Amino acid sequence: MRLIAFIAGNGLPALGLRTGSQVVNLTEAGLPSTLDALLKLPDGLSAVKDAAARATRHLAFAELKLLPPLQNPSKAFAIGLNYVDHASESNFEPPRHPVLFQRFPSSWVAHGEPLVRPRVSTQFDYEAELVAIIGKAGRYIAKEEALAHVAGYAIFNEGSIRDYQFRSGQWLWGKNFDRSGGFGPEFVTADELPAGASGLQLTCRLNGEVLQSANTRDMIFDVATLVAACSEGMELQPGDMVITGTPSGVGLARTPQVWLQPGDICEVEIEGMGVLRNPVIDEARA
Amino acid sequence: MRLIAFIAGNGLPALGLRTGSQVVNLTEAGLPSTLDALLKLPDGLSAVKDAAARATRHLAFAELKLLPPLQNPSKAFAIGLNYVDHASESNFEPPRHPVLFQRFPSSWVAHGEPLVRPRVSTQFDYEAELVAIIGKAGRYIAKEEALAHVAGYAIFNEGSIRDYQFRSGQWLWGKNFDRSGGFGPEFVTADELPAGASGLQLTCRLNGEVLQSANTRDMIFDVATLVAACSEGMELQPGDMVITGTPSGVGLARTPQVWLQPGDICEVEIEGMGVLRNPVIDEARA
Repeated sequence: MRLIAFIAGNGLPALGLRTGSQVVNLTEAGLPSTLDALLKLPDGLSAVKDAAARATRHLAFAELKLLPPLQNPSKAFAIGLNYVDHASESNFEPPRHPVLFQRFPSSWVAHGEPLVRPRVSTQFDYEAELVAIIGKAGRYIAKEEALAHVAGYAIFNEGSIRDYQFRSGQWLWGKNFDRSGGFGPEFVTADELPAGASGLQLTCRLNGEVLQSANTRDMIFDVATLVAACSEGMELQPGDMVITGTPSGVGLARTPQVWLQPGDICEVEIEGMGVLRNPVIDEARA
Repeated sequence: MRLIAFIAGNGLPALGLRTGSQVVNLTEAGLPSTLDALLKLPDGLSAVKDAAARATRHLAFAELKLLPPLQNPSKAFAIGLNYVDHASESNFEPPRHPVLFQRFPSSWVAHGEPLVRPRVSTQFDYEAELVAIIGKAGRYIAKEEALAHVAGYAIFNEGSIRDYQFRSGQWLWGKNFDRSGGFGPEFVTADELPAGASGLQLTCRLNGEVLQSANTRDMIFDVATLVAACSEGMELQPGDMVITGTPSGVGLARTPQVWLQPGDICEVEIEGMGVLRNPVIDEARA
């Protein structure tokens, strides 16, 4: 199934089931208005088909204003240096353990919304990533059990303000500028994809030019390993996110370097999961 | 004013105003049940006095079960290496910019509740810290204006699982084990303390022995500088927290090293702000 968060005709957030170019409003049919809330319900996802069957109106996907799939995770882990060639281009050793940092919801926008280049930096970089979304709580989850805790997947553009990222050894600052990342277009349930969303082509295009191209099977730590790691000491909750890292080709590591500019269109595509497309604008001056 | 979050007689969370050994229930008098919610109201803090005047019953502070002052900040920044002597004992250079990472609410407990030593590590360390709590939203806040955005202060024990903290260059993992930190006992409004809570004695005692002793004026980056920095690119919201870093004397840097053990009592005291006291227990085995 492919679920979207969107603004319904009444101006309120709603959850929809997309089939091809058509969407049915699940919230109107009695389900919660956000994926965050749906995933917290026992068997929330299993209620979707019945709710969809009750829906009578069909909406045109192309006309909807989307919201980010999730807006209120208790934790959104971002994973650093999770592809060998990206670690290398960034002048880091490949990590021996998953590298965890946090991405705040205020740092991401929906498919179609602008990424905002802040007024204090021009070093605005893109990062194409796969997101795994937790459906079942757990702590000290064994790697062998980890995929049973993943409800589905989505696409992330982990926009990064590089000079702020490297102001200290801790990357949080440059990874969390308001509206600097993209998340969407939709939530794809795990059963629609290969186990662990492995073996999928991952591409980033800037104004149509391919700048990142890799396969999700090339992650150093696969989705199961990352979920197990994030749960080691911290209980994962439904709706928590693991943003799994980017492959090589980021703007920082290019010669000459490539930075996102107002007017750019940045697209991240993952095979079988659609395209996350965002324009870039400049932050309004105070 | 000194506000506490606690479990009321009806079993539900409530907010109280403490005066000496007595507490009045502000929630019963019409205010929100959490400090998170109170700070989000325009002039929420100014409603406290009227609400307190309406309250008729007085509760004994010593008999109340406390909750952490805040449980739902949109962001809880922790600051690394913010005292010269702690940076030095940790073998880091004093930072040129504030070092920001994230602390999740699941990682902290209230005054009196046990800190939990996880089953996967014995390297459980204490860190005495001052927390600044945001009362007014803002982005790109000038340092000169920053203290006007701080509603008040509290005490934090930034319990850290050192081996996990240093598994990679990013510290999040070891800083966020469930129930590994303490926060409380109460929220002290800024007007009760010196500007920026500077010049206050900060002490950590383990089973009565003083292991950290410093003054908040010795921070490398003071509260105003930290608030301004955290707001640079990220809009701060009421209820957001800046956990301002620890001085020297942590267990990691001692010879021999000192690790928290089940049965220990760890206390953090800040002059004029009370004592945050937590016992240590072992995590239940699965």
